[in-house]
Amino acid sequence: MGGIRLERSLLELMKKRRSIRKYKKEHVPLKKIYEILEAGRYAPSGANQQPWIYIIITDERLKEDIRREAEGVEKKFHERAPEWLRKWFGEQGITAEKSFLTDASALIVVASDTKAPYWLESTWISISYILLSAASQNLGTLTYTPSDTVFLRRMLNLPENYRLVAILPIGYPAETPPPKTRPRKPLGQIVHQNRYGLKKL
Amino acid sequence: MGGIRLERSLLELMKKRRSIRKYKKEHVPLKKIYEILEAGRYAPSGANQQPWIYIIITDERLKEDIRREAEGVEKKFHERAPEWLRKWFGEQGITAEKSFLTDASALIVVASDTKAPYWLESTWISISYILLSAASQNLGTLTYTPSDTVFLRRMLNLPENYRLVAILPIGYPAETPPPKTRPRKPLGQIVHQNRYGLKKL
Repeated sequence: MGGIRLERSLLELMKKRRSIRKYKKEHVPLKKIYEILEAGRYAPSGANQQPWIYIIITDERLKEDIRREAEGVEKKFHERAPEWLRKWFGEQGITAEKSFLTDASALIVVASDTKAPYWLESTWISISYILLSAASQNLGTLTYTPSDTVFLRRMLNLPENYRLVAILPIGYPAETPPPKTRPRKPLGQIVHQNRYGLKKL
Repeated sequence: MGGIRLERSLLELMKKRRSIRKYKKEHVPLKKIYEILEAGRYAPSGANQQPWIYIIITDERLKEDIRREAEGVEKKFHERAPEWLRKWFGEQGITAEKSFLTDASALIVVASDTKAPYWLESTWISISYILLSAASQNLGTLTYTPSDTVFLRRMLNLPENYRLVAILPIGYPAETPPPKTRPRKPLGQIVHQNRYGLKKL
C-alpha cells in the first residue's frame, strides 16, 4: 500500500469526490455502510476519547419525518440568509427542498459527546474519513448540517451531553456535478511563508 | 484507482496513521509539503468558501519563539487540567514540553476565515486531508491545538477575521507508537440503528 501509488490515488480520490445532492432510490447494503463507518472509527481524537457516535437511519418513515422537519427549518433559514449566500444557493440550484433525506439509501447521523476535549474538531476528522471511504466505494455523500437541530434530538432520543454534528446521506449518486461548479483557490493564494502575507521564503 | 484496491489501502492508511510527537531533525523538501497541502485544498467547504489558509513555518528562530510561548501556555494548562486528563497525559508521557515544535522540519499553521459559513468544520476536513496525505508519504504529523493562541496571532500577523485552528508539525517520525496505546472503541459500541440506544434494525 505504500509509496507513490497510494499517494497519487488518494489525491485523485480527493479531487474527484463531490458532494452529492441527488441519489438513486437504490439500496446500499448495510454491510457496505459498516465498512465505511469502520474508517470513521480510526480518526485521531482529543485524548483518544473518540467522542463520535453514528446513528444509521434506514427506516423510511423516520427519513420522511426528518425531511419534513428539516425542510421547515431550511425554509426559514433561506429566507433569513445573507444576500451573497442566497445568490450562491440560487446559482447552485440549492433550495429548501432536501430530497436527499428521503432518496439516499441511508442517513448517517453523526453526533458527539460534548464532554470530550475537542469533540467537534475530532468528530469532523472522523466525518472526513467517512467521506473519503464512501468515495472510494463510489458512493455519494453530503455533509448536511441543519440550521436547527432541536427536532432531531427529540426524534432520535439523543442524550443531553450529545450534540448533533452532521447528517450524511449515503447512496448511489444520481448526478455527476461538473468540476467547474466548485473551483478551488490556487495554492499560491492560500499558502503563506513564515508569516501571514509573506509568499517567499 | 477505483474499486477495492484503493478502498482497502485507504482503510489501511487510516489504521496505520498515528499522531507523531518525536521527529528526526531531517529536512523535508518544501516541494513535498506543497504536495501535501495540495490535498488540503480539495476539501469540501461550506458554500465552497475554502476558508483555510496554511502558513508554512520553516524559519528556525520563529519555530523556537513559537515553542517557547507554547510551552508557557501549556504549563498553565497542565496545572489546571482535570484529574482524568492529567492522568491520561501521564500515561501517554505527554508533558508541557513541546519539542516537536522545533524538531519537526516544518510547522503548518492552519488558520481560517471566521466570516465563512462553517469555517471551523470545513477547516477540519481540510486538516484531515492533509493528515492522510502526509501519512501516504510516510511523513509524521500531529494536530496540535495550543490552549491559548493570542501569541501566535501576534507573531504571524494574522488579520482579525482569521482564527488559528491548529499547528501541524510535519517531519520524519523518530518514534513508532505501538497500536495498543490508542485502542479504538468497537463499532458495535458507537453505531446505533434509527434511534440512539437501538442496536438492531
